[in-house]
Amino acid sequence: MLDGNTSVPMAAALAAIAWNEAGLVPAIAQDALSSGVLMLAWMNRDALVRTLETKAVHYYSRSRQRLWRKGETSGNTQKLISMHLDCDNDALLLRVAQTGVACHTGSPSCFYRALIADNERAVATAEASGLADTDHNKTS
Amino acid sequence: MLDGNTSVPMAAALAAIAWNEAGLVPAIAQDALSSGVLMLAWMNRDALVRTLETKAVHYYSRSRQRLWRKGETSGNTQKLISMHLDCDNDALLLRVAQTGVACHTGSPSCFYRALIADNERAVATAEASGLADTDHNKTS
Repeated sequence: MLDGNTSVPMAAALAAIAWNEAGLVPAIAQDALSSGVLMLAWMNRDALVRTLETKAVHYYSRSRQRLWRKGETSGNTQKLISMHLDCDNDALLLRVAQTGVACHTGSPSCFYRALIADNERAVATAEASGLADTDHNKTS
Repeated sequence: MLDGNTSVPMAAALAAIAWNEAGLVPAIAQDALSSGVLMLAWMNRDALVRTLETKAVHYYSRSRQRLWRKGETSGNTQKLISMHLDCDNDALLLRVAQTGVACHTGSPSCFYRALIADNERAVATAEASGLADTDHNKTS
């Protein structure tokens, strides 16, 4: 049994993953310094190979249906520090060295909108419209 | 614009989420104390409502096609501390108080198998078969 302190060859990594019906696997990016969760994106086989080969994190954009290197436009790259697969082989956890901010909105993390905040203080004036803006451009 | 320190009413939360074609959204569970990423699971509308109502984290099991309360069998429950939605409304980050371990294998986190370890030490003897065991029972 492999543990959290050893790496595996590329072929084993690729063979281990339970890709979904679209050939993708969700990848969580976590800041290796702060441990903050930065974003959730998706990888296809090519994105995973390029990430492992270059240590520059690549994802697959579902909206634009193409590979993208994180930060290719914004310069806000992610360098891979570690990668772990979950118990049922269908999710990845990447610890990364984040340059700049992770989110295309300028927020350090994509998870900047609270549904339930730590202080559990309900804000009756919150407007759904403020939450529901959709922007699928994750190429920052 | 909502920030990370305010909560929103249930209806706004439900309306904001971009559920996938199966009516699900991926949810990352992060330990609120250690900041370790514990698991990635999926929520449907019912799971989200019950989680927000009870603060006991519920997920939707894709393999068993039913709602499950985390820890219903193992006792390893998750109490919701905070919940954040990402910038394009299709992923959730839950900070939780984890009782016991998160993974049904007995590991504290489901992400216990390294593809690339922090020390980047390749282990030529790693066997793909050791990685590729599939167990989709996430009801622990």
